[in-house]
Amino acid sequence: MEHINRLLGNAIAKHRKNIGFSQEELAEKAAIHRTYVSQLERGLKSPTVFTLLQIAHALNITLTALMEEVEKKL
Amino acid sequence: MEHINRLLGNAIAKHRKNIGFSQEELAEKAAIHRTYVSQLERGLKSPTVFTLLQIAHALNITLTALMEEVEKKL
Repeated sequence: MEHINRLLGNAIAKHRKNIGFSQEELAEKAAIHRTYVSQLERGLKSPTVFTLLQIAHALNITLTALMEEVEKKL
Repeated sequence: MEHINRLLGNAIAKHRKNIGFSQEELAEKAAIHRTYVSQLERGLKSPTVFTLLQIAHALNITLTALMEEVEKKL
């Protein structure tokens, strides 16, 4: 899968653990399925911008900060 | 459709016009279909992060700058 998806998945997992959420908790807060969180974190899916906004809100970070973190590693 | 998609579509259209590209030219550079560019610009679709990266590269802007521009209007 594409490099950006893996970097984004790593960043989502890092922020999820920082905030002390399980994948189930993130899924519930972001209104997505738990298996989708797992796939995202492994870089197997590329979320839409709308879904990513829901995830960023659930993790209490901005989309901009999340993108910056990912893009500087590209 | 979701508010962020409309804001993102507006931002993509603005940058496309700034750089002097037609929708066809952006589509070709970003390796996506022209009708998809039209749908994105009207906020009818939410692109994946991977597709958005291709669009940002085609428009010679960063994903981070594009997200910042959109998010500050949310």
